[in-house]
Amino acid sequence: MSEFAVWMQACQSRMEAVLGEVLPPARIAPQRLHEAMRYAVLGGGKRVRPLLAFAAGEVTGADPARVQYAAAAVELVHAYSLVHDDLPAMDDDALRRGKPTVHVEFDEATALLVGDALQSLAFEALASKTLADAPAAQLKMVQLLAQAAGSRGMAGGQAIDLASVGKPLTLPELEFMHIHKTGALIRAAVLLGAHCGRASDDATAALDHYAKCIGLAFQVVDDVLDAEAPTATLGKTAGKDAAHGKPTYVSLLGVARAKELAQELRADALDALDGFDAPAGRLRQLADFIVERSF
Amino acid sequence: MSEFAVWMQACQSRMEAVLGEVLPPARIAPQRLHEAMRYAVLGGGKRVRPLLAFAAGEVTGADPARVQYAAAAVELVHAYSLVHDDLPAMDDDALRRGKPTVHVEFDEATALLVGDALQSLAFEALASKTLADAPAAQLKMVQLLAQAAGSRGMAGGQAIDLASVGKPLTLPELEFMHIHKTGALIRAAVLLGAHCGRASDDATAALDHYAKCIGLAFQVVDDVLDAEAPTATLGKTAGKDAAHGKPTYVSLLGVARAKELAQELRADALDALDGFDAPAGRLRQLADFIVERSF
Repeated sequence: MSEFAVWMQACQSRMEAVLGEVLPPARIAPQRLHEAMRYAVLGGGKRVRPLLAFAAGEVTGADPARVQYAAAAVELVHAYSLVHDDLPAMDDDALRRGKPTVHVEFDEATALLVGDALQSLAFEALASKTLADAPAAQLKMVQLLAQAAGSRGMAGGQAIDLASVGKPLTLPELEFMHIHKTGALIRAAVLLGAHCGRASDDATAALDHYAKCIGLAFQVVDDVLDAEAPTATLGKTAGKDAAHGKPTYVSLLGVARAKELAQELRADALDALDGFDAPAGRLRQLADFIVERSF
Repeated sequence: MSEFAVWMQACQSRMEAVLGEVLPPARIAPQRLHEAMRYAVLGGGKRVRPLLAFAAGEVTGADPARVQYAAAAVELVHAYSLVHDDLPAMDDDALRRGKPTVHVEFDEATALLVGDALQSLAFEALASKTLADAPAAQLKMVQLLAQAAGSRGMAGGQAIDLASVGKPLTLPELEFMHIHKTGALIRAAVLLGAHCGRASDDATAALDHYAKCIGLAFQVVDDVLDAEAPTATLGKTAGKDAAHGKPTYVSLLGVARAKELAQELRADALDALDGFDAPAGRLRQLADFIVERSF
């Protein structure tokens, strides 16, 4: 296993442990809700956002013991969005991370509450322990995550996505949607990780640019995988977007040009890291991983 | 109009203005989502939680210009919970505050996202402006709201409520449910308002006890009104709980004993305020208002 793969696995194990600690135990009332929350969050996922938070923290000299809670907060928001996204009123999906979705395994009302409670838990995780030297900086992190999750971030992106079904979007419109739907939270992961350490304004701006490029690249690759990979490899229903008449980078650009675009975005992301040299090594490796991944 | 009624109306107008300012304008993309968020929050509701926050702030000498954002945060969480609670997978209700519910006026997916985005907005409102002298105290407020909203607070209460449909609950079980479902957020309203000022540990404990009593009283009165008042007065579907086979204070105790219980809880709440004298005047008036209201 490569040194990077070892690091990635260590981060993923650490994340699993922290999420397990932050989530209420299933033996505490209301038991079924807590069981469903743990089902939704634990034992799956690539943990791309936490990996980005840990890697960004390395750039700003952040203590991983702090970064892990910021990373958990972002991952909890991500997990809640998947649970709600899979509901019948939204994408109506039965499979997620190779398991039945929460509303299939439990029921719709429980899935709704699981998502709601995971979002609250994210902010609890972000506010309950010391994660930055100055409490004011930590308040700023709360504000950042709230904006990234809200109507001008992820939830807004979902709304734009819904409104776009069956409509011919232009490339700028598709990009606008993804900057909100997945980009905002990926950006939050990088910035929250960085803010656990000492991030100058210049460093923050550079990391922000990296995050924007890598966020879009992530989505372009997702679209390519959705078009090419079999369901078993993805752990979620493949070809879903095309079947729902949703515009994707592949439907707009074709597979070949979409793959090129992903490479261009990776190059842009790496350029943004030029000033950091060695400490940004993990962020560079993650850019490669995100673009080259096959799941 | 009584002096108290004038104060109440002034607080409600102020709250409407602050909520209108905190909510993104409907002309900003995604327009339909923002329109639906404003529809869900503005132009209705008694604003009981904000009133409690303002009144608690008077006890601790808090600046109302700070309290108003803490109050808005709590009200946004309350508003989101109503939108999700009304969804077909939950209570499936078509009427709220005398208007069609969000999923009826818009659609289910939009209602889901409205609730999600309102919760994010609540934390944004709580973290974006200076609301306490020490940023660490404000972080504590974020933690408090997150806990009150989450699986060991309001969302947990909803889960217990769902699980109780058609089951014979004991009085302690019913109380346990309501302490979570409505009590946690009412408690957060009082404590957040207080924390905008200088709240000693003793004062916080006394206010906490007041909030617990008044939170339960609020629910007991709700059950009495649900059993007795016509739909037009309530602005929501009356007799709903009984029709759904949900246990209520009235179904467990009968109307007469439920009314007595509300009076006992008011007396307990007022006792908790004994140490504050004059500054707690508004909290006393609110206890009366909550128990005597007819809507």
